[in-house]
Formats: sequence, C-alpha cells, structure tokens
Amino acid sequence: MKDFDLGSYLETRRSEVDGALDRALPPADAPPPRLHEAMRYAVFAGGKRLRPILVLAGCEAAGGERASAHELACAVELIHTYSLVHDDLPAMDDDELRRGRPTVHVAFDEALAILTGDALLTEAFRIAAGAVGDGTGSHAGDGARAASAARVLGVITAIAEAAGAAGMVGGQVADLEAEGVPADEDLVESIHRRKTAALIAAAVDAGAIAGGASGAVLEALRAYGRTLGLAFQIADDILDATASSAVTGKREHGDAEHGKATYPAVLGVDGARRAARELLARCLRVLEPLGTRAEPLRAVATFVVERAAAG
Amino acid sequence: MKDFDLGSYLETRRSEVDGALDRALPPADAPPPRLHEAMRYAVFAGGKRLRPILVLAGCEAAGGERASAHELACAVELIHTYSLVHDDLPAMDDDELRRGRPTVHVAFDEALAILTGDALLTEAFRIAAGAVGDGTGSHAGDGARAASAARVLGVITAIAEAAGAAGMVGGQVADLEAEGVPADEDLVESIHRRKTAALIAAAVDAGAIAGGASGAVLEALRAYGRTLGLAFQIADDILDATASSAVTGKREHGDAEHGKATYPAVLGVDGARRAARELLARCLRVLEPLGTRAEPLRAVATFVVERAAAG
Repeated sequence: MKDFDLGSYLETRRSEVDGALDRALPPADAPPPRLHEAMRYAVFAGGKRLRPILVLAGCEAAGGERASAHELACAVELIHTYSLVHDDLPAMDDDELRRGRPTVHVAFDEALAILTGDALLTEAFRIAAGAVGDGTGSHAGDGARAASAARVLGVITAIAEAAGAAGMVGGQVADLEAEGVPADEDLVESIHRRKTAALIAAAVDAGAIAGGASGAVLEALRAYGRTLGLAFQIADDILDATASSAVTGKREHGDAEHGKATYPAVLGVDGARRAARELLARCLRVLEPLGTRAEPLRAVATFVVERAAAG
Repeated sequence: MKDFDLGSYLETRRSEVDGALDRALPPADAPPPRLHEAMRYAVFAGGKRLRPILVLAGCEAAGGERASAHELACAVELIHTYSLVHDDLPAMDDDELRRGRPTVHVAFDEALAILTGDALLTEAFRIAAGAVGDGTGSHAGDGARAASAARVLGVITAIAEAAGAAGMVGGQVADLEAEGVPADEDLVESIHRRKTAALIAAAVDAGAIAGGASGAVLEALRAYGRTLGLAFQIADDILDATASSAVTGKREHGDAEHGKATYPAVLGVDGARRAARELLARCLRVLEPLGTRAEPLRAVATFVVERAAAG
C-alpha cells in the first residue's frame, strides 16, 4: 500500500478527535467558567492527538467502527493532557512553555492548574464510562449493550492501570527520583515504560478492544502498542537532545538541564537512534498478519521513529 | 429500633472498609515505594470512613450483599482522600495539619503530594472497574456478569460526575474564587452541593445501585444522599467555627481565617444549626418507607447532624 497518505490520514483523524473532544467536554461557559476555560485551554493547544488517533487506528485495524471508539479516544487524550498540566507545575518540571504557549499554571494560576488536571482526569473516566448506550435511544439491544459494558469496563481497567501508580504516575515519580542520579539503560527503560509507553500501549489496546479484537489479532495489536510506546519515548528524547525549541515547542535541551534519565544520555544519540529503528522494525513485524487494515498503524510508527532517527 | 448501636456499627464497618482498602491498594513496597508509602500514609490516616460506610449502608438499605459494594466503597474513599491531599497543597488551602498529622506535602514533598493525589484518583477508577468478575473464577454466569458490568458503569459515571468539573473539583474552584467575597446562602449552598454533598450523594447512590435498588427505593436513597450531603457540610462548617483543633484535628477556625463561604458566616451559628436539623428531618422522612434495613442510614444522619447541632 505505497499510496497510503499519512499526512491526510492524520489530518482527518485529528479533526475527528477534536470534534469528539469538543462534544465530550462540558462547554467553556459551564460553571465555574474559569475551570472550563482552563480545561479547554489545555486540551485545545495544538497537540498532534497521537494517542487518540492510535485508539481509532487500533479500532480500524481490528475491523471495528471508528465511532464506537470516540469516547475512549477522548478519555486517553484527556489523561495525557492532565499529565502534561501537572508535570509542568512549579513543584514538578517547572515548565513555563508547552507547544509554544504559556503552560496552564502560567496562563491561569497554580491552584487552578492542579484542579484543571484533576478535572480532566476525572472527566476522562466519566466519558469512557459513557462509551455504552444508556438504554434510551441506543440501537444496540440489551444483550449487545451488556456485552459492550463488560468490554468498556475492561478498557477502563487497562487505561487506569496505564495511568496510575503502576504506570504513568509511578513512572513520573521514578523520573523525578532519578534526576541527577547516574542512570543505566534498564532504569531509563523502566521509567519510560511506565511514564509514556504504558498509556500509548493502552490507547492501541482500547481501540483494539472497542473494535472487537480478540485472540491473535488482539495479541499482535498489544505487542505493537507496547513496542511503539517505547519507540515514541526514545524518539522524544532524541528530539529533546538534538532539536531546537522552534521544533519541539519546549525549552531547548530541557531534559539535559534537569539531569533527566534519557536514552541519549545512556546510549548516546546514535545508539538511541539505532534502538528506535529496531523497535520500529518490530512494530512492522508484529503487524504483518493484519494486512492493509493496519496500514495506519504502520505509517504512524514509521513517522514517529523517522522524524527523530533520520539524522 | 431503639436498640440500634451506631458506635458498634460504625466500628465494624470501618474495619471492613480498612480491610478492603488494604487489599485493593498496591502494597507499600510496590515500585516506586515512596509513592506507595505516601498513598497509604494518606489513606490510613485515621479517617472516619463515612463515605465508604455510606456505600455499604446504601447497599444494605437496598437489600444487597455488602461484599458486592466493597470495591465501590474503596473507590469513593480514595477519591475523597485524593481531594484532601490536593486541597491541602500550598497553592490551595496550604494546610500543614490534617487529622492531627502532617499533611502529605509536609511529610513527603509537594511534587509527591500532587502525584499521590493523581494516583489515588486513578486507582479509584481502576478499583471501581474491577467490581465485576473478569470471567475467570467468578460465580456469576455470563448474563449476570454482563448486567453487573452495566450497573458498575452507571456507578462509575455517577461517581465521576460527583467528583469532576460539575461536582467536587468545580465546587473547589468556586470555593477558592469565593474567598474574601461577600457570600449569600445561595452561593454557599451551590459551592457545598458540588464540593462535598455530591460525593456523599454518589456514595449512597453507588451502594444503592450495587445493592440492586430501583424505582421508589432508589429514588428515596438518592433523596437521602443529596440531603445528607448538604447536612454534612453544614455540620462540618459549624464544627470548624465552634470547636477546637483537638476536636477537628485541623487548624482552629481555618475557614474564617481564609474568608471562606460557610453557613455559619451567612446564617450565624444558630441559623446553621437550624438548617442542619431541618435537613436531618428530611433525611428521616424520605427513609420512612424503607423500614429497618435503613436504620444505619438514619443513625448516621442523626449522628452527623447532632454532633454539630446539639450545642
């Protein structure tokens, strides 16, 4: 499928995700308006929507209807967004700029940034739990709705595990503890698996389950998600170490400044690029049995790694 | 039922809740240990467990098995606990003491307190989603499990609504915005409904739904929960205004010091006591049709109001 146009795929899916987020979030003038303004400021900040697009692409690769994965895509993006708002706080990474704009605690204030993150995390689960018809006006019969409820609960569990103490939050604590401490590759991988890779893997997983995947297809999609998650973080580290603030929208070389545990720090930039390319090869290998339906997942993995490893 | 012994009821239920929390939370030595220590420091802090006991009592009042509500009881308590950890932060209420002990950001540090709250909130939803058998080893058949899954999703939605932007978080934002601003009774009620009453109402609701309540019973339990929630906050305000730090475990008169919107501030202490007693009468009235199964709920409401309104 050499004709696959990733740029146009990402563009249409991103606008689909933006529409779903706009519908899922309370309106900006809901009381208290300052909270809802801050939530939307954080959510509509020009992000690439990689995670929710992975939910949709995972659903497509499983042969499901994308619309059935909209709520779960929103939930994953809101969890990602809340984590950025809290990570940027003065007590954490103390970043004043995110995607070239003032971070939430700078644009509003610190208390509101804490509460905005809390609200986004909570709304994520509210929206995910609503991924099943409520019995009034849904097309699904009672049996189908009940089966779907069990599936949604499974996805909520997977997302919460990826986001919680064993996943993203635990990874962030380990990351803060590792600042300035000499890191080796095992420590860096263990931090990244939890801090970044877990939620990316959960995104693919959520889409796959929403799309009805089971057996070998589900296993393949899970292996892809786990591998892509790690590749993504390595690529992000490489960009932080090599690109300018104009490219990343963040402060230049912020990781090195904080003495963060990163792949370039333990493997060198060339070694990190090699590791990312090996993970890409694995992503493509596990997707082989899935045929053309998995083309978006292949293209996303290639894009994520190549933009960082091409140098 | 004048023989009902509330003290012994609360004691046995509290130890049941503590056991369920201990099993539901990851162990204290799970990596990273500092995070899990802080989570358990916040959760096992000598709280009264009012909210999870209301989940169990709501389940009992509906005629259900208490054990089926354990996960939901844990989820509600973890959400309550996360909100305390974040409310105490320097950027929020800046409290150094909670139940007579150093708050989490004092005992650990600010970054860890933010992340501990995030982890508790996320684990709450992970645990709630696990309230249904996973299909391996559960006694329920497929049909019963699927129906139960739909019920759990409904509870997750109710809890997230109570905790999120339209509930607790929104109430906290409104509370911070109201500091030092002249308050009237409508504003105070609107803040308290969201900040405190919503989660208490959701606790009763969660128990009722887990216990299989429907129709008039569910409506009665919901009316009780909403009314008790408001009565609870008024009682808490009265205690803050009148009791010493030794009784509340908090800094004396912290609300007045912060210029917070409270019932004693707008109604006077006597007016607030009258309001609390009227709400108690309503709690008892709506429970009348439920008979002796609702005795714990009656006793809890009486206790909550009388400890503050007896003066």
